[in-house]
Amino acid sequence: MLHDSQVEAWLREDLGHHDVTNEVPGETAGRLVAKEGGVAAGLDAAERVFDYLDVDVTERVEDGTRIDAGEVVLRVAGPAKAVLRGERVAVNVAGHASGVASRTRRAVDAARAVDDDVRIAATRKTTPGLRELEKRAVVAGGGDTHRLDLSHMVMVKDNHIEELGLESAVEHFRERVSFATKIEVEVESPADAPRAADAGADVVLLDNMSPERTTEAVDLLPDGVLAEASGGITVGTVPDYATTGVDVVSMGSLTHSAASLDYSFRTGE
Amino acid sequence: MLHDSQVEAWLREDLGHHDVTNEVPGETAGRLVAKEGGVAAGLDAAERVFDYLDVDVTERVEDGTRIDAGEVVLRVAGPAKAVLRGERVAVNVAGHASGVASRTRRAVDAARAVDDDVRIAATRKTTPGLRELEKRAVVAGGGDTHRLDLSHMVMVKDNHIEELGLESAVEHFRERVSFATKIEVEVESPADAPRAADAGADVVLLDNMSPERTTEAVDLLPDGVLAEASGGITVGTVPDYATTGVDVVSMGSLTHSAASLDYSFRTGE
Amino acid sequence: MLHDSQVEAWLREDLGHHDVTNEVPGETAGRLVAKEGGVAAGLDAAERVFDYLDVDVTERVEDGTRIDAGEVVLRVAGPAKAVLRGERVAVNVAGHASGVASRTRRAVDAARAVDDDVRIAATRKTTPGLRELEKRAVVAGGGDTHRLDLSHMVMVKDNHIEELGLESAVEHFRERVSFATKIEVEVESPADAPRAADAGADVVLLDNMSPERTTEAVDLLPDGVLAEASGGITVGTVPDYATTGVDVVSMGSLTHSAASLDYSFRTGE
Amino acid sequence: MLHDSQVEAWLREDLGHHDVTNEVPGETAGRLVAKEGGVAAGLDAAERVFDYLDVDVTERVEDGTRIDAGEVVLRVAGPAKAVLRGERVAVNVAGHASGVASRTRRAVDAARAVDDDVRIAATRKTTPGLRELEKRAVVAGGGDTHRLDLSHMVMVKDNHIEELGLESAVEHFRERVSFATKIEVEVESPADAPRAADAGADVVLLDNMSPERTTEAVDLLPDGVLAEASGGITVGTVPDYATTGVDVVSMGSLTHSAASLDYSFRTGE
Amino acid sequence: MLHDSQVEAWLREDLGHHDVTNEVPGETAGRLVAKEGGVAAGLDAAERVFDYLDVDVTERVEDGTRIDAGEVVLRVAGPAKAVLRGERVAVNVAGHASGVASRTRRAVDAARAVDDDVRIAATRKTTPGLRELEKRAVVAGGGDTHRLDLSHMVMVKDNHIEELGLESAVEHFRERVSFATKIEVEVESPADAPRAADAGADVVLLDNMSPERTTEAVDLLPDGVLAEASGGITVGTVPDYATTGVDVVSMGSLTHSAASLDYSFRTGE
Amino acid sequence: MLHDSQVEAWLREDLGHHDVTNEVPGETAGRLVAKEGGVAAGLDAAERVFDYLDVDVTERVEDGTRIDAGEVVLRVAGPAKAVLRGERVAVNVAGHASGVASRTRRAVDAARAVDDDVRIAATRKTTPGLRELEKRAVVAGGGDTHRLDLSHMVMVKDNHIEELGLESAVEHFRERVSFATKIEVEVESPADAPRAADAGADVVLLDNMSPERTTEAVDLLPDGVLAEASGGITVGTVPDYATTGVDVVSMGSLTHSAASLDYSFRTGE
Repeated sequence: MLHDSQVEAWLREDLGHHDVTNEVPGETAGRLVAKEGGVAAGLDAAERVFDYLDVDVTERVEDGTRIDAGEVVLRVAGPAKAVLRGERVAVNVAGHASGVASRTRRAVDAARAVDDDVRIAATRKTTPGLRELEKRAVVAGGGDTHRLDLSHMVMVKDNHIEELGLESAVEHFRERVSFATKIEVEVESPADAPRAADAGADVVLLDNMSPERTTEAVDLLPDGVLAEASGGITVGTVPDYATTGVDVVSMGSLTHSAASLDYSFRTGE
Repeated sequence: MLHDSQVEAWLREDLGHHDVTNEVPGETAGRLVAKEGGVAAGLDAAERVFDYLDVDVTERVEDGTRIDAGEVVLRVAGPAKAVLRGERVAVNVAGHASGVASRTRRAVDAARAVDDDVRIAATRKTTPGLRELEKRAVVAGGGDTHRLDLSHMVMVKDNHIEELGLESAVEHFRERVSFATKIEVEVESPADAPRAADAGADVVLLDNMSPERTTEAVDLLPDGVLAEASGGITVGTVPDYATTGVDVVSMGSLTHSAASLDYSFRTGE
Repeated sequence: MLHDSQVEAWLREDLGHHDVTNEVPGETAGRLVAKEGGVAAGLDAAERVFDYLDVDVTERVEDGTRIDAGEVVLRVAGPAKAVLRGERVAVNVAGHASGVASRTRRAVDAARAVDDDVRIAATRKTTPGLRELEKRAVVAGGGDTHRLDLSHMVMVKDNHIEELGLESAVEHFRERVSFATKIEVEVESPADAPRAADAGADVVLLDNMSPERTTEAVDLLPDGVLAEASGGITVGTVPDYATTGVDVVSMGSLTHSAASLDYSFRTGE
Repeated sequence: MLHDSQVEAWLREDLGHHDVTNEVPGETAGRLVAKEGGVAAGLDAAERVFDYLDVDVTERVEDGTRIDAGEVVLRVAGPAKAVLRGERVAVNVAGHASGVASRTRRAVDAARAVDDDVRIAATRKTTPGLRELEKRAVVAGGGDTHRLDLSHMVMVKDNHIEELGLESAVEHFRERVSFATKIEVEVESPADAPRAADAGADVVLLDNMSPERTTEAVDLLPDGVLAEASGGITVGTVPDYATTGVDVVSMGSLTHSAASLDYSFRTGE
Repeated sequence: MLHDSQVEAWLREDLGHHDVTNEVPGETAGRLVAKEGGVAAGLDAAERVFDYLDVDVTERVEDGTRIDAGEVVLRVAGPAKAVLRGERVAVNVAGHASGVASRTRRAVDAARAVDDDVRIAATRKTTPGLRELEKRAVVAGGGDTHRLDLSHMVMVKDNHIEELGLESAVEHFRERVSFATKIEVEVESPADAPRAADAGADVVLLDNMSPERTTEAVDLLPDGVLAEASGGITVGTVPDYATTGVDVVSMGSLTHSAASLDYSFRTGE
Repeated sequence: MLHDSQVEAWLREDLGHHDVTNEVPGETAGRLVAKEGGVAAGLDAAERVFDYLDVDVTERVEDGTRIDAGEVVLRVAGPAKAVLRGERVAVNVAGHASGVASRTRRAVDAARAVDDDVRIAATRKTTPGLRELEKRAVVAGGGDTHRLDLSHMVMVKDNHIEELGLESAVEHFRERVSFATKIEVEVESPADAPRAADAGADVVLLDNMSPERTTEAVDLLPDGVLAEASGGITVGTVPDYATTGVDVVSMGSLTHSAASLDYSFRTGE
């Protein structure tokens, strides 16, 4: 959930010490309007911004909804001063999150065109300070959060494997993490995929492989072990990977390179 | 400057409560490598992340430097555990800021091709929590920060003008803000530009005008009053506006829609 | 605006871990009473303190109002425990801010006796942690905030000028700050005032000059460039400077040396 | 002790998002110079500000030292950018605290002229956010902190007494506070002083009494119970109260109305 | 009082970035039920947790109440999502505080069986971050908070005495602390107890003495000086100390080793 | 990792505004000594406390080490004032964490006496604010952290099952959580265990069953699905559950009811 201290920090950085243009008497209404189509996200965060300012949110589209250009996604009413104070931060946070959701949706739709089940996942390449917001936006867009933080799932990487050997590296971490934590192993060649599975990996990451090699690796994996494709995959190449049989296609660009969705905030009736 | 509490928040959200894969004994070195060309920014922030973790930054490219694919932009040395803890956050913050700087640079270069002086400016459409980082990245890319916060410069907007009339609105705010604060007036038609200047505007914002109307408005403005073009301007249309005679071209996309610059972090020698 | 974390810090430092004298059952009313005349300020902050404690503020004088001894400026009602917890902090913050506003008012009144337009401005010499509160109190007293923070306006100072020369120093900063930021240049002699103006200063600071030399400097300045007098000016000498033709007279003492306005808080009907 | 989060907040409010005038390459030295005589305080806080910025404090006068105009009280050396960033906050915090210490010293000296033992104490009327700084400044000036927070000592006030009766009110709180906590009882007439003592007060507050009535009250008190005079006492009337036999004279003005001590900060050799 | 930032930190550490099991639509009720008998404490803190989440607390047992197994101590109603988010933290905080209160109550009851007046006190051996919560729980259990923090009362310890001598050590601190602060002196032998009293101790700590030596020491103390027994005292040995004539028996175990009281939280009617 | 803001909060709550007994000149050494045997934990946190105060930690036993009464576990050297400020908090945090580790060790040892593999796990019943410290202490004692936070693993509970049916409830959450997240299902009868496994549970929680019924349930589970026993298990009954074939035995008491390990801090050589 979005906490008060974060909302406070966002408002503080935007307002400065003497925001005279907000010093407007009376009450007003306001609405957040989409200027282009996409998927709504971050509206719960926008609502929290207005809550912090004691502005009523009278109507709100659910995060995850597909929206069209011109659609009103949030309506507020309250003291004009407070509405104006929240406006810019609300637009910025909703625009950012909705951009992530919309980009995720496009990738998911591209995958769905060729496969019903493959998951489109984000990575830990998120914008500092916005991990939770962006992960929830990915979900709003139909994607999978992947690891929420470094403690969520163990990732056995190439440098661990170089140092300890694949089997020992998996063993090493299995002894050190909770039974509650999955272990994923990153492999560079199809041949290593079944080795990782045998060593006890819950998930095997097929890193930077072509769709062909990805298919080859998936075919070598036993049932019950998940396969993830990762590395430079774009919305354009998603279908190629979606048909390889992997369970998950992950893309850092969902969070680190999504353009903001264009919203504007209008006050008055 | 980037403060400790922000670095702490970034690390906390990424690490979680039990990051076993970081529990590596001994010392290590590490380097941040650009995987594509662009403009470096946010490396001071990355350095602060490592400082917080008591990792030495032994070498660092200055923010604002043009960098090539393959270039090492930051080198660190310290306890392996601490280096690993900082890695992801450092990549994310540097990637985000460098993405903003690189996009700004492209817009500035597009403008310089046709005009020596016009400023390419950001807006307040920044990512919540990262205002200062992004504004500094804009500067690193050769751009202009524009307003740092709402208190920095007064913007007289259409709703103020509707309510009070253009001249009265400017007067209203001039009485209420410090002599240290500039006043910018947003106008919708070329004819209103000189009216705003006469009313005492330091800057006139020519909002959503075509290049032709922008030129027309600029020609009506007296010396000493700055003109800013804004509204849907892209890197592609920057040259069209840069030749209108405006002093400033502003683009929200510099901060809200810049793709991250691709960096990777490598440990060991 | 005053944020929750600041209110929390103020209450925490005053209450300690076990404030038994506040453990009073039932509801009560309370009122903040001025024990001397002056100008009200910081009452919005006092209201925020009570808000944080879920105490209703039922009546409040607007900041900036001239008040007399004996006047009730704020009324509250709520759980006795909460009212008592807020009392001391509310008195302290309102007293401090109203002291600043009242001192500013005296300076402004002294200036108005001889000139209708000159602005009385504060400086960055504020009490750490209370910049915004004090700047708003200055406004409540009829004064001008001057720079809100170091990023608000560039001040070219003697050491910059010594190093780079006056003209180059101004040029140096003009290239480095946003078009949204004014540039003020500090000069030590009347002869330097027009040089600063020619170099592009928006404001010229006439530092530590006698009223006579101040007049001399102002006379040398072109139209459209503001003049500020600063340095050891007191309420007593304000009129001497107010008649020199300067646009602004600034005084650090408005914020750093204002005696608190005396309020008492009374509970019950 | 002064904590990092407070230093961070002070710097953040002063610097803003883009402090270009601090962007100076290289190293520099700096010194804090008193422009008037007084008592030094808050220099430990100023040192913490520079510590936070990784600037070395190479020399520092101890808080509590009497200083003369022209005296250097603190010397620093470090990156020019960092020295400049700390300068204003350091001056403001040291000036504020030294102002409190100097005012306290004047009151203590006035008391010492007529009595060797009476304590000059502050109150809880401190500047929000600066309780500890000001209490330590009072000590630096030779004064007594009095209650550090509301939980430090119980104060039985007139409204408690009205409601419960004097003896019952004291009893009420003695049952509710720790044996570690003293109990002070506020009385309005000399006759109530011995009643408070008999009820178990450790300290009796003689509120708003003339020196004569104060003497009268003190004479009625048994040994071992302390007497405090309070209410509108100024440096001018301190001697009148200091000779009444009270143990403590308390003055809110020590903290809420002390003018800042004038310091300037100079960079370079 | 419990502040918002602490509640926020508690929730943040428990929820993580994507708590899908809380994503339940609609409203629900919930109740906190004791699974064993004891003394309620921390329910005000549990209420604050639900307040933060905008869940109504419709009923609450007062802290300090003796409760039986099966008893409902708190009822809430609100959005299911918010109720579920608060549940675990509320149970944990109430369980912890009630454990402290219950353990204190057992010690107090053991003492009351042999003496009507002796106080059972906690120490500064509290759980980091929970000082206030635990001290209030001690009070809820019928105990005495003892020192709330290090500044609350001076404790003259053996190392001070070794260095300065007993009398000089007491004198040393009396000159340095406020009249509002009590002074306690730690002694190792009965013979030192009256020396400490003569030196001006308000309280004498009889450290690690047998009940017999404790009685001996108490007999040597003059009236008006309190005696505290401390050091390895358990609920089992409390009666032995309670009959020695000491005023206070202190036990670190009240706070640092109390088992949590077992509560469960149930949703629905 | 333990962050600065938490250390700051711990010190602030213990020191108060004027800790005169810490005002000791010069340098000193200090050592943390175990007064009873157990398992060390929280010494990294104690080190962070001293780091914050700029005290050098010159020697430290690794967390997880078995220690004997009389053993020195941490040595420090630095300014006496700073060493004294950190002492109490360091003892409290190390004592608390080591108490958790020692209790965990006893449970693990009891289990190892009868089974080589079964994991002894903590729960989310941790002390508010100390989740990470306690989870790491559990690991230091040889235990398993179990869920770090609510987002780490999905727990399908009885109320979910009542509402949706067991199979649908598991399906419901599998669609909503990341592939990176395990799903545990709580069952009340042995017969439900294989149903949960078939529905896709990664782990089955056998709640409040006798050892006999636990064995029965384990026997019904297919390979590859983990079994956890939970509910009122004590160090005494651990062996009974350890021999049932479950993979995990979890105990809330490891964290919520561990007595502190007794340490004392001694200054000087």
